[in-house]
This record gives sequence, structure tokens and C-alpha cells, in this order.
Amino acid sequence: MTWSPANPESVFTYGAPQLKFGAGAADEIGHDLAALGAHRVLVVTDAGVLSTGWPDRVADGIRGFGIDAVVHDSAHVEPTDASLVAAVERARADGPFDGFVAVGGGSAIDTAKAVDLLLSDGGELMDYVNVPVGAGRAPSRPLAPLVAVPTTTGTGAESTTICVLDVLSLKVKTGISHVRLRPSLAVVDPRLTATQPAGVTASAGMDILCHALESWTARPFTSYERKQPGERVPYCGSNPISDMWSERSMSLLAKAFRTAVRDGSDEAARGDMALAATFAGLGFGNAGVHVPHANAYPIAGRVRDFHPEGYPQDEPMVPHGMAVALTAPEAFRWTFESDPARHLAAARLLDPAHGARWDSDDRDVLPGILVDLMRDIGLPNGLGEVGYGEHDVADLVDGSLKQQRLLATSPREVGPDDLHGILTRSLQLWD
Amino acid sequence: MTWSPANPESVFTYGAPQLKFGAGAADEIGHDLAALGAHRVLVVTDAGVLSTGWPDRVADGIRGFGIDAVVHDSAHVEPTDASLVAAVERARADGPFDGFVAVGGGSAIDTAKAVDLLLSDGGELMDYVNVPVGAGRAPSRPLAPLVAVPTTTGTGAESTTICVLDVLSLKVKTGISHVRLRPSLAVVDPRLTATQPAGVTASAGMDILCHALESWTARPFTSYERKQPGERVPYCGSNPISDMWSERSMSLLAKAFRTAVRDGSDEAARGDMALAATFAGLGFGNAGVHVPHANAYPIAGRVRDFHPEGYPQDEPMVPHGMAVALTAPEAFRWTFESDPARHLAAARLLDPAHGARWDSDDRDVLPGILVDLMRDIGLPNGLGEVGYGEHDVADLVDGSLKQQRLLATSPREVGPDDLHGILTRSLQLWD
Repeated sequence: MTWSPANPESVFTYGAPQLKFGAGAADEIGHDLAALGAHRVLVVTDAGVLSTGWPDRVADGIRGFGIDAVVHDSAHVEPTDASLVAAVERARADGPFDGFVAVGGGSAIDTAKAVDLLLSDGGELMDYVNVPVGAGRAPSRPLAPLVAVPTTTGTGAESTTICVLDVLSLKVKTGISHVRLRPSLAVVDPRLTATQPAGVTASAGMDILCHALESWTARPFTSYERKQPGERVPYCGSNPISDMWSERSMSLLAKAFRTAVRDGSDEAARGDMALAATFAGLGFGNAGVHVPHANAYPIAGRVRDFHPEGYPQDEPMVPHGMAVALTAPEAFRWTFESDPARHLAAARLLDPAHGARWDSDDRDVLPGILVDLMRDIGLPNGLGEVGYGEHDVADLVDGSLKQQRLLATSPREVGPDDLHGILTRSLQLWD
Repeated sequence: MTWSPANPESVFTYGAPQLKFGAGAADEIGHDLAALGAHRVLVVTDAGVLSTGWPDRVADGIRGFGIDAVVHDSAHVEPTDASLVAAVERARADGPFDGFVAVGGGSAIDTAKAVDLLLSDGGELMDYVNVPVGAGRAPSRPLAPLVAVPTTTGTGAESTTICVLDVLSLKVKTGISHVRLRPSLAVVDPRLTATQPAGVTASAGMDILCHALESWTARPFTSYERKQPGERVPYCGSNPISDMWSERSMSLLAKAFRTAVRDGSDEAARGDMALAATFAGLGFGNAGVHVPHANAYPIAGRVRDFHPEGYPQDEPMVPHGMAVALTAPEAFRWTFESDPARHLAAARLLDPAHGARWDSDDRDVLPGILVDLMRDIGLPNGLGEVGYGEHDVADLVDGSLKQQRLLATSPREVGPDDLHGILTRSLQLWD
């Protein structure tokens, strides 16, 4: 351990939405909304998810329980300040609402969080955005109930207390972060991911895996100096509860990930992936993530002309899970020395068949497992394949360093040279 | 498996309070109450817990955050309709309150649930008590926030949606059961259990163990016929999430239980027991418990003159955890055939050092582990030692059969003859 606090933290916190899981769960949301006291709700989605038919099916189901439901495809993939303001204005025009439902990936769920916040608590978007970009205002009262219905197995947005957005004029990714943004209920119905293309399952699955691995390896809560109650943050470092969710998520991934990519119609594998995503979300939503997620911001944000299979081809993009995965092998080689036993335990969970053969000081085991997996499921061979070269590394380092909220849970103190090394060694992952 | 539903259930639910865990957590409750919007709160405890000083210390801490706090020692150990009505009347006289804090064991927490319900939603106690005893009315709105601060490592009341009470005039144990009774926040501070005598640690620990073992072996949620949304109950049978909590709880107990009984000042063991209790509560609060808990009601309720060490000596009693434990070995010998692999997996979790030696069809392994543990920690040798004989068994069977809410999650259909056999074989557990 590299930390020795004078007055170590002894308290950790754990928060989560209530959960309804399983095939058919998305048809019952009206019942749950009625129990939450809602009479007229807004279903927030994006245009791509709308075209699957699920948001309208969910809205019809809600109406079947005597609750009025309006559908807005107002979420932008990767929300911006402009897209959130537009979504809020459209919701205000069609309101009032006393409940919200998000059907989609992280973008739809985060958009619904912002809409709920601004319709429940008033004011303007920038009032609530984290300082220094915004005024960092906390909501003065509980928000209307928000039911999150993820259609992408990965983001964990159904469990977290944050809404991530790009502020276009400043070219910065920031967020709104408050415990009241956590959805009241997560409804995880594996049927909604049935149409997910293999490329999306692969990227989103790497996001799940990194949620689990990053919270599992996150700086332990006991390694911080003791906090005053008002200083506690939702991401409190690894702890016995987040560890449990992370471990279980890795075991499910070991069983189901390759199968789910190879055969999207395998219901058992899809169910396991949905459960793995939920578990990882419940873990990282409390422990936090670190280096791979910090690197993912500039990797996704500075894309020039990469167009991955399975995603809309109209704009270049590095999907979030892919962006996270690309530096994961090298990040975990670098974090190894913070706690070798923990890294090898993760390797055993992810590759239970080969656990016996490893030395206790082998920093290459976990990166090797990740690289083998990425090759098998069709991820790009490093940052080079998504369009970055050595001359981009300094820029990427700058972008990662802006994610101090995430880097604060790195198990080793991380500076520009460390990130430079990790990113450079991630240009090509295998020969 | 003995169940073959025509249209199997595919959905399970999971609910839990938010959690703050660790030494020092009980000093921060005022901060948490402020975040929940409270200005004037009632701290509910019982006379025994009040004498430890903790309720007043918690109230002082709350006042330090600018919140008014009143302390009532209005909880009766094993709440009755009369004790709850008295607690509600005392609270109404001193109100209004916009938040509640329970400091104590299951009795204090359940009393606070009833007080919160009646002060938040109006009406009389019997309006809400489960049918057929009461009118089974559901609260019409969310209750004021309730923070549960358990001082006994075991009950799990901080996680559950039920308030258990004896209706004196009818000599029946029943409850109030609604999802809105679940506390908003559980604050688990192991310091509050430091003064627990060894006998209490032993009995309460067996309650934890049986919570974990009964939810781990409970009838699987997929073995039920598919429910309509309005038919869902908080106790939905074993499922992947309750399994995880139960397993982890058993591993913690394997590590810490004997040590915590032997040396109450061992902080690590006490912390592990507090965590095991929390985990087991989060598991059984969703999966449910079955035969040992059903039997515990009449075993505790019909006591004549047993006075256990470590408990108040003014009234005869069989402590809840002891009452649960006394038929556990025989209950799990009887449930073995429902899922031998699961029973042996539990045995391996509880006794990891000896896991290799067992045959896959040995129904005696798990009962043997439980009996060895009970001898080591000083539990009575069966129902005979707490004052019951063969002539009492028929009465005890009648009492157990009244707990159909619990028996519904038994992994085998259970009738009077089954209970008669389990109770008879539990009269003496070892030679």
C-alpha cells in the first residue's frame, strides 16, 4: 500500500436505486410509478432507441396502469449543454410531470436526470453544473421519481448520482453530481438489449468489465484521511460492498461475455451480461473508477475519423466502452504494484480455468487476460487503430489530467509521466 | 427441485436502505437527516438501550447539526399492539416531527416504523395491521425519513419492510408490511455493539446465520408461478442478489463468529459481525426466511421459565436468535433434498477448512457444522434445555403453521408432520 493517512477513514457509504430485474420487468413500470405516486410522466429516450419501438411500448404499458405518459426523443448521444437545455425546454412546454422514465443508454438516463432536476427544482442548467464550470447548486428538495430502463448493458447510469455533459463553448466534459440524481428505481429487462449488435455488446461489455476492475482496484476507503460528514462523496473508494459487486460482476463476465458477443440471441448470456452490468454499476457507483475511465474522455473526445461497426456511421466516434478498454491493459500493468494480490485475484475471477499457473509477482497476467479477450471480441488493437499516433499522446495526457474527480480514486498517485507511459504503450496492444 | 410452475416467474426485485457503515458513523446522523430535509426528529429507543447512553449521544450529535431531537424510550422488547399505540400517542403529544431515528434492536426499529407510519399517514394502528387481524391499509404517501441505527448485530430490521407485533387480546403475532416501512438509511456503527454480552452475541449471531442460510436455501424466485405486478411481495425467494449477500455473510461469520463470542472487545471480529448482520439483512430482506424462523415464533412465545445469560432476568424468555437456532440443524437436514449442492456449498462457506472431505449426498454435513458451532458458543442443547418436552410439540407445530407468510418460501412444501418431525428431533441436538 502506498497510502498512510494520519487519521484513516473508518466509514464508507453505499447507495443504490431499488431494482426490478428480469424478462418482463419493463412491462410493469406503470405499477411501480403508481406506487411512487406518479400520475403523468415523461419518457425520455433518443432517436435511435425510439426506433427500436421499446420507448413506445413502455409508454403504452404505463398508460395501461392509468398513468398519462408522453414520449420525448430529446436525448442526444453524449449529452451537451445545448442538448440538455433543449430537452428541458421541451419538457417544460409539455409539463407538468410528476415522474420521469428514461429508456436508453447512459445518454438517455443522464438527460432524464437533468430534466427531472430542472423541472423539480427550477432554475437553469448552469446553476447545477459542477464548479468551476457552473455554480454547483444542490437541489433544495427531493426530485420527482425517476425510473431508469437501460437498453445498453454497460453504462451503469441507472445506479449513479451523476449526469455527464459536454459544455460546447468551453470544449470541456463536466457533470452535475448530487445524490438526489440517483434514479429511484432501475428496471433491467434483458429483452431490451436483444437487438444490440455484436460490436456494441463488445464495447459495452468492456465498459462493464472496467467498471468492475477499476472499482475492485480503486484506492481503498481506509487509505484516505478521515472526512467530515459534509465532505463525503458518492465515490468513496473500494470497500467491502463494492468489492462484492465487482467480484460477482467479473465472474458473470467470465461466463457470458464471449458468448454474448458471438451469439446475441443467447438469452442466458444476455441475461448474465445485464446482471453483470447492473452489479458493476452498483459497485462503481459507490467505489468509483480511475485511470482507464479518465483516459476514455480524451480518447472519445478527440476522435477524427474512426467509424466502428455496429454504431451509427454518420459521425466519427470511439464508443465509450471501447475508449475505456483501449488503455485498460496498460493501466492495470501500471497499478499492479499497488496491490499485486488483488490484481491476481481479479485475473482468477476473469479466467478461472487458468488461475493455478500464475506467480504471485506477475504483473503481466491481468493485462494478458484483457488483451486476449479484446482480440477475441473484435476490439481494436490499441489507440493506433482508432486513429491516434505518438504525436497525439501529449494532448491525450492533458485531457486525462482534467478528470481529477476520477483520478482521485487511482490506487497509485498518477501524474503526467505515468499517463504518458500508459497511453504510449497502449498505441498497439498486441503483435 | 420439487417445483414445476407452468409459467415460471422471470422477475425479481431488490430493495434496500441507503447505508453508512463504520466506526464513527453514528456521530454523523444529523448531517444525513439534514440532507433528508428533517428539522425536528424523534429518537425512538427502549429503556435497556437508553441506559447504554448511546441514544442520548446520538441525539446530541443530531442537535450539533442544528436539528431538534427528542428521545423517547417508548419501545417495548417484542412490541405489542398496546406498546405501539402508547409509543404513537407519546410521539403525537410531543410532535410534530419530520424525521425519525431508531436506536436499538429490532424492537426499537420496528416501533419507530409504526410511529413514523401513524404520524406521517394518520389513522390508527389496526388500520394498517395485516389482514385478517387488521384492515391492511397501505400508506397513501411516502413516510417521513427514518434512520435506523442497530445496536444488536442480527435483527436485520434496518433492511426490512415489516414491523412485527403481538396482538395481546388475540395472542397472535402479526405485522404491518409495506415497502414504505423500509428505513431510508441504515447507520451501522460497530461501536454500538461493543457492550453486547457474550450470550447476546451468540444468540444474535445465530439469527444472522439463519437469515443467511434460510435466504440462501429459500425457494428460488423462478420456482413460483409468474406474478402480476400488484402481487409482488418483498420476499420474492432466493435470487442472484440475495444469494450474493447470503454467501458473503456466511464467509464473514466463518471468520468472526466464534472470536466475537469469545472476546467481545475484538474490534475486527465485531466489525465483521456487524457487516455480516447487514449483509444477511440485505439478503433475507428480499429473499425471505422459512422454517427455522417460523418455528421461532412459538418457541419464543410459549416460554415458561427459561432465563438466558446476558439478558434481563425479570421475565422468562427465549431470545429470538436462540429460538431460531434451536430447530435450524434439523430444518436444514430436512430441506437438504430440495437442493443438496446448495446445502453443501453453504457448509463449505461456513467451514472452509473442511470442505474437501464431504460426499455430495451427505445431508448431515450442514447440521453437523451448526451443532458444533452452537456447542462452541454456548447455545442450549435443543428445545429440551429451554423447557420444552415431547408433550409440547403439537402446540409448537400449531404455532409454526400460523407463519404461512414465512413457510411460503420453504424450499419444500411443509406440513404439520414435517414440522412435528423437525421439532421432535430438535428436543436434544447432541449427546
